[in-house]
Amino acid sequence: MAAIIGDTIHNIPWQDKRPGDPYPVWRYTNNPVITRDNLYMANSIFNSAVVPCKDGFAGVFRVDYRSRDQKLVTGFSQDGITWHLEDKPIFEGYDPRLCRMDGKYFLSWVKLTPHGTTIGLAHTEDFAHWTQLEDACYPVARNGVLFPRKINGEYILLIRPCDRGHTPYGDIFLCHSRDLTYWGKHRFVMAPVKNWEMTKVGAGPTPIETDEGWLLFYHGVLTSCNGFSYSMGAALLDKDEPWKVLHRADSFLLAPHEPYECFGDVPNVVFPCSALADAETGRIALYYGAADTCVALAFTTVDETIRYIHENDLIK
Amino acid sequence: MAAIIGDTIHNIPWQDKRPGDPYPVWRYTNNPVITRDNLYMANSIFNSAVVPCKDGFAGVFRVDYRSRDQKLVTGFSQDGITWHLEDKPIFEGYDPRLCRMDGKYFLSWVKLTPHGTTIGLAHTEDFAHWTQLEDACYPVARNGVLFPRKINGEYILLIRPCDRGHTPYGDIFLCHSRDLTYWGKHRFVMAPVKNWEMTKVGAGPTPIETDEGWLLFYHGVLTSCNGFSYSMGAALLDKDEPWKVLHRADSFLLAPHEPYECFGDVPNVVFPCSALADAETGRIALYYGAADTCVALAFTTVDETIRYIHENDLIK
Amino acid sequence: MAAIIGDTIHNIPWQDKRPGDPYPVWRYTNNPVITRDNLYMANSIFNSAVVPCKDGFAGVFRVDYRSRDQKLVTGFSQDGITWHLEDKPIFEGYDPRLCRMDGKYFLSWVKLTPHGTTIGLAHTEDFAHWTQLEDACYPVARNGVLFPRKINGEYILLIRPCDRGHTPYGDIFLCHSRDLTYWGKHRFVMAPVKNWEMTKVGAGPTPIETDEGWLLFYHGVLTSCNGFSYSMGAALLDKDEPWKVLHRADSFLLAPHEPYECFGDVPNVVFPCSALADAETGRIALYYGAADTCVALAFTTVDETIRYIHENDLIK
Amino acid sequence: MAAIIGDTIHNIPWQDKRPGDPYPVWRYTNNPVITRDNLYMANSIFNSAVVPCKDGFAGVFRVDYRSRDQKLVTGFSQDGITWHLEDKPIFEGYDPRLCRMDGKYFLSWVKLTPHGTTIGLAHTEDFAHWTQLEDACYPVARNGVLFPRKINGEYILLIRPCDRGHTPYGDIFLCHSRDLTYWGKHRFVMAPVKNWEMTKVGAGPTPIETDEGWLLFYHGVLTSCNGFSYSMGAALLDKDEPWKVLHRADSFLLAPHEPYECFGDVPNVVFPCSALADAETGRIALYYGAADTCVALAFTTVDETIRYIHENDLIK
Amino acid sequence: MAAIIGDTIHNIPWQDKRPGDPYPVWRYTNNPVITRDNLYMANSIFNSAVVPCKDGFAGVFRVDYRSRDQKLVTGFSQDGITWHLEDKPIFEGYDPRLCRMDGKYFLSWVKLTPHGTTIGLAHTEDFAHWTQLEDACYPVARNGVLFPRKINGEYILLIRPCDRGHTPYGDIFLCHSRDLTYWGKHRFVMAPVKNWEMTKVGAGPTPIETDEGWLLFYHGVLTSCNGFSYSMGAALLDKDEPWKVLHRADSFLLAPHEPYECFGDVPNVVFPCSALADAETGRIALYYGAADTCVALAFTTVDETIRYIHENDLIK
Amino acid sequence: MAAIIGDTIHNIPWQDKRPGDPYPVWRYTNNPVITRDNLYMANSIFNSAVVPCKDGFAGVFRVDYRSRDQKLVTGFSQDGITWHLEDKPIFEGYDPRLCRMDGKYFLSWVKLTPHGTTIGLAHTEDFAHWTQLEDACYPVARNGVLFPRKINGEYILLIRPCDRGHTPYGDIFLCHSRDLTYWGKHRFVMAPVKNWEMTKVGAGPTPIETDEGWLLFYHGVLTSCNGFSYSMGAALLDKDEPWKVLHRADSFLLAPHEPYECFGDVPNVVFPCSALADAETGRIALYYGAADTCVALAFTTVDETIRYIHENDLIK
Repeated sequence: MAAIIGDTIHNIPWQDKRPGDPYPVWRYTNNPVITRDNLYMANSIFNSAVVPCKDGFAGVFRVDYRSRDQKLVTGFSQDGITWHLEDKPIFEGYDPRLCRMDGKYFLSWVKLTPHGTTIGLAHTEDFAHWTQLEDACYPVARNGVLFPRKINGEYILLIRPCDRGHTPYGDIFLCHSRDLTYWGKHRFVMAPVKNWEMTKVGAGPTPIETDEGWLLFYHGVLTSCNGFSYSMGAALLDKDEPWKVLHRADSFLLAPHEPYECFGDVPNVVFPCSALADAETGRIALYYGAADTCVALAFTTVDETIRYIHENDLIK
Repeated sequence: MAAIIGDTIHNIPWQDKRPGDPYPVWRYTNNPVITRDNLYMANSIFNSAVVPCKDGFAGVFRVDYRSRDQKLVTGFSQDGITWHLEDKPIFEGYDPRLCRMDGKYFLSWVKLTPHGTTIGLAHTEDFAHWTQLEDACYPVARNGVLFPRKINGEYILLIRPCDRGHTPYGDIFLCHSRDLTYWGKHRFVMAPVKNWEMTKVGAGPTPIETDEGWLLFYHGVLTSCNGFSYSMGAALLDKDEPWKVLHRADSFLLAPHEPYECFGDVPNVVFPCSALADAETGRIALYYGAADTCVALAFTTVDETIRYIHENDLIK
Repeated sequence: MAAIIGDTIHNIPWQDKRPGDPYPVWRYTNNPVITRDNLYMANSIFNSAVVPCKDGFAGVFRVDYRSRDQKLVTGFSQDGITWHLEDKPIFEGYDPRLCRMDGKYFLSWVKLTPHGTTIGLAHTEDFAHWTQLEDACYPVARNGVLFPRKINGEYILLIRPCDRGHTPYGDIFLCHSRDLTYWGKHRFVMAPVKNWEMTKVGAGPTPIETDEGWLLFYHGVLTSCNGFSYSMGAALLDKDEPWKVLHRADSFLLAPHEPYECFGDVPNVVFPCSALADAETGRIALYYGAADTCVALAFTTVDETIRYIHENDLIK
Repeated sequence: MAAIIGDTIHNIPWQDKRPGDPYPVWRYTNNPVITRDNLYMANSIFNSAVVPCKDGFAGVFRVDYRSRDQKLVTGFSQDGITWHLEDKPIFEGYDPRLCRMDGKYFLSWVKLTPHGTTIGLAHTEDFAHWTQLEDACYPVARNGVLFPRKINGEYILLIRPCDRGHTPYGDIFLCHSRDLTYWGKHRFVMAPVKNWEMTKVGAGPTPIETDEGWLLFYHGVLTSCNGFSYSMGAALLDKDEPWKVLHRADSFLLAPHEPYECFGDVPNVVFPCSALADAETGRIALYYGAADTCVALAFTTVDETIRYIHENDLIK
Repeated sequence: MAAIIGDTIHNIPWQDKRPGDPYPVWRYTNNPVITRDNLYMANSIFNSAVVPCKDGFAGVFRVDYRSRDQKLVTGFSQDGITWHLEDKPIFEGYDPRLCRMDGKYFLSWVKLTPHGTTIGLAHTEDFAHWTQLEDACYPVARNGVLFPRKINGEYILLIRPCDRGHTPYGDIFLCHSRDLTYWGKHRFVMAPVKNWEMTKVGAGPTPIETDEGWLLFYHGVLTSCNGFSYSMGAALLDKDEPWKVLHRADSFLLAPHEPYECFGDVPNVVFPCSALADAETGRIALYYGAADTCVALAFTTVDETIRYIHENDLIK
Repeated sequence: MAAIIGDTIHNIPWQDKRPGDPYPVWRYTNNPVITRDNLYMANSIFNSAVVPCKDGFAGVFRVDYRSRDQKLVTGFSQDGITWHLEDKPIFEGYDPRLCRMDGKYFLSWVKLTPHGTTIGLAHTEDFAHWTQLEDACYPVARNGVLFPRKINGEYILLIRPCDRGHTPYGDIFLCHSRDLTYWGKHRFVMAPVKNWEMTKVGAGPTPIETDEGWLLFYHGVLTSCNGFSYSMGAALLDKDEPWKVLHRADSFLLAPHEPYECFGDVPNVVFPCSALADAETGRIALYYGAADTCVALAFTTVDETIRYIHENDLIK
């Protein structure tokens, strides 16, 4: 039995799996949980990040406004399902990730600059006051995801370098820092291998520490004759040298099959950005953007996911 | 309070806004109003134009037949909602606009030629007999829209030059004519500014005269990794020098959010082609093509739309 | 009255046409008939082939697994509607076609090689043991479809040459063989003519012999600003010189209009791969892939289809 | 014997053809005649226009400066070969054409606007003071060439519509005007037919009136795996309805074969922009841009060119 | 010492290598040997094939006429250097290869069809009367090269499948035939491996039989930011199973370095199409197209080339 | 009079300017100085770097071998013009830059990795033994250029992020490091502004310290219909905050005009990689790759270049 190393989250959102479902990840039946109706002038609210905060949850949400400006807003929830969003953008950009480290909440996101997107970094203690750090890299990069603790005394950041448009390629790299200002020792982590992810891959939620290694959910993109299709996969990274992929599922865990994933602003997108993981029960709640239109929720357990990775392991 | 300058249309199609809806444009709940079932051998009927005619309404409809030949047919309705289409194409081409001027109905449309599309012009008094004029321009152009009256003694035509395919750019221009045969004094009107329209813009229905200027609904196109997405915006043009944009909403008024807009022959298309405007009540009924598949109807008032333009004004 | 030349299939799947439907092809109301739920670890099951076998039906099915590996599996059914698929791939590749000839079942399919796709050929007597032949051609080709009997002592294979990606062009050719190993006397059959098929065409099910010639259902592809759209057309080929197109409908018989055709892994795909034809009644059951996601069923009669071809004939 | 209808130019630049040369157009042996050395800060001087003026010649020259700004400057010459350019741009843009009409010199050129290129029009009597007219069209167009006299009371302008980049297509059209302000009655003139011009065609020098019709030199573009290659062809247009092509050579008259045509800023460009035609002798001196780098000179006679057109006539 | 297996050609064109030249292939100092001046109305004469014939040489030449029509003409020479071309095209198409087999001369070439290029086959005994065979394949293919004798009773044809344009990929395959009509048993031969050939490879002259295997000269294409660059490489194929590459040079033998190779109609092309090989001396004369403009000649010996292959062998 | 701050180089290569030349940079009349003949098996030797070393010069040279493998080799010279290259690659990659700092020679170059190019860093004291550092960044980047001294205690590296191919965009950035291992504080330096550099810009030689700021030579790329064209420009950067551009010439200083720049492996390339600057005389010798084929030399003085920058200053 695999185990999560981390906090207990008693009020983690949860719904049991439908009997007979043979797959390790299942959707919340009341999906989507957040839509454009959650905020005035929003065109869509999707790829977003949440963390446990006090006795509930806090989050940073990607809102594409009716101008299609892309901004981040904060939100709060008691149960992780019903959210109140604040109509006051904190940063320009998109695709936030959150983790708690050193007593603070760290935010990384795709920051807009006049010269392309880069990885913005900021921290807060209360989701009201934010301290912005130096950008982690030059443009163009996306999918910057911090590990939730230092490894060997260094912060670790996953990054997906890209080009200025709808990049037709993409691998995951990571880099190290002693101070969150200067970054170096870049390491290749993974590239597309199987058809479902053949165009590009990018890190998803903050990696989850388990006794078998870092559990990384990530998205993979396939290009059909009608464009990109985003699915979710998973891998286990080495605890001390996390650029080493120990195991990796050759098959996706979740792909766009439901209507709210298959049509909307960008058809066929399942884009995981955040996960809650309860160390006591092994339960994991995954928040993912659906069709670049809304936020949906899916569930798994550390055990089911790691078993699936082993059963479909790409790494011989 | 803004006011429409023009005729009264007592039987304008109408449905009150759902209570609590914070936005200025709302959809007809029985959408779509015209589908392929309205005409034998039609694959789709969409981007179409209507005008008040006698005590009802007449229209020119874009029909893509099962051969995907693109033709215009006429249709008639008592209430503007239930339409009878005539199975006899009047012209080859698509995206018609209609206006009444000098006691005649003028039709402009995207006319097919062996060398690309151009703007065809014709007029009728009865929707049965048509007089075709010289084309307004050389290929390649689309979205040719006449103003409904001469300004300073000249006819004015909005035009969106383009290339021979799915043009990846596009601005709105206008030109002048004294006789509808020779055109000149080309003026730039507007280019994409905000993300929702970043790829291109094109004029929609015949401009509506108001006491604050010409109210122009237009479409804007955003390019995602899965192709084009068409939404509707609005601007106010100067009455005498209509190439001057006085005010312009930085946010769309209607975007593809309903299933009949999000999937179909071309997913994610809201393409306004025609509007009925009742000077007495300020009511406006907008006809728009949805997903290049059917015709849908949306409502607004001159007051709500102009207030939205002011509240989200792009022009400082 | 047109007549099918061939076997009687008493248990051919069937459903009468809805009264008032003016078109020659109509959908099964319980579509789709095969989905990803038919096989563990399948992402999608679509473009597939069936034949009468013993007192029921056998088939070869395109399964895209959750790794998006593309494989062929066998399946069996009593009624042609409820299918049991065997979880044991027989070949790598996709888009199978089946025909019965010389007392054997012949399979042609898009075979994957390290250098592009080619046309694989194999035969079986029991769908359990397969004899693989030499590939019919060098890469890159797709849509290889055998005629169900020799013509003038030679096997005939339809082929659609293509490039290594989502080929933006494509015509149908055929070639001859005396031994299914060496192929020659390549002949052009047809190219896109009308808008609905303007990007490319490819043969669909095994041609059906009728007293008016070989009835060929095929797919045609239109490119919109949002990608490819696949529809189904039909033509009649000369009995002895089947590269001669005698008649050809200028309009599609079936296009993506239902939700299961309009969204899914690849929106807007109707891809016919197989047909059952009952010589006694003239009934034809068409199996087609929908949205690259599932298998759907449509019905026609040889008489209705051929009448439609004549009424909309492209060939003067 | 074909004859030029027009003025006598006694001092037309001239060099006899090399004995044995079988072709109708031959190069000046001291080519190029104008290079970047003719003007300080010029990167290149090419596609340019000249006319007889007083007892010598005047011209408007395309100068690409070291900033690669594209501007037009005037120049003067006694012999048409040695030119003095004035270091004072008159307009922004490129590819000028000149003709004399109604006692004035008319200039048309590719005018730069923030929204793409259009056809600028201006006239002068002394090459020092210019009157700029309304642009002849909306963007995007290039290769605007005026006929040197009114036909049936109307000015005629040749135009090549295009897109915003290195347009991969292009046909020649013409339009009519009574006042050089409003233009209409657009007519298709010619499209690419043969391989040497397969990508696009565009009008070259001001058409030359002959007793057999308007002699139009034009450029045609072929796309190889290494880009565009520009050559020069010729056609005869109907005198009264000049959109009717009476005769047209299926083969080029001049293609990039000399080093100064084959390499330079844009390899493989022969781009004729101007011609001097002497009615007395039938001599024609052609000025053409070479490799987008310099101006070169070639010679022919009306008789040799028209004979070549007849011998290689595309029009049956 | 490697040896050629074949005929003696006493009058093979020859020039000794410049002392100190360290490379196995050297150019003829009077290059080019054939230019557009060899034929009236030729724009360029390049990629061409020659064979010993009677006491001299015969050839089939690619002529691009001034219309840029691509045709094949015959030519004759006493010394292999000075050629007389006949102004009478024998076939439409390009890139011919010639070999002598069974007492006849066989020609393969890139044949133009309305649906793309295919491999045409024909034979002659006198270069005046030609018998055309069935095309060897469906479109689209280029670089069809016959082996000069049957192997195990079968004719062997090298082929390079491609797309309809300037194909951005390409591997060499071969197929077998017993009768030159039906072809099968397609085998992969080689794909690009090193940078100099990274875009595509294609067979060059008829393979030369040596005691170490079939010596195949081929072209490889590299894509720079300014387009394609064609160089010449070499490999040794197994005698009985010629799809097996025994040895292959990782470096080119000849690349575009001379002006007549670096500029012209297509800059940077060295395209070998034909070789004369003298069994007595081991001398090889290579005819190659230069810059798609003219025919040039280079020399080597079987010994020097095979030593170079061994010294730079790609096959471990 | 502007002054270089730095060492005296008595034996700097030099040639006086041709009288009457109005431009600040002039070519060495014996160009090119290094060609493929300098090294066995070299296809081309171009974009290379040199530094004063002992009483002569040392360099690191980009060699593209006949396999088109890209490697760096060292070389030595007494006069900076005649070079001896060592046939022993030190690193894989290309486009080296060299500077002397802290008593060592630092090399930065475009390092090849399986996942794209990155900026390699290494140092040596003798050009025989090299210490390789961590890569400065993740892929994909090119044009990494170190400043020759720390500024405010930090190393500064110029970088040009790019994509995996012939990147169609590109700006110059810089980043800071305290230890040459961890890099941060990324700053935008400059983007293309004028036509001659419109596609992208990239830093050239190691910046030269002057009393007016850091003199940066850089390359700019223009895209014509026939591909990229590389020229050289110059700017002055702030001494302490070198991401601030104080002055910048709006016009190039050197563009491809000579045959060895206009044709070769990549036509139209002037790519400066290295400069020698003599503080005593103000002389600057620029080494630049020409046509991706050879190394050429040009001269200027700090005074002439800075005067040109001021006379054509882009910065108001």
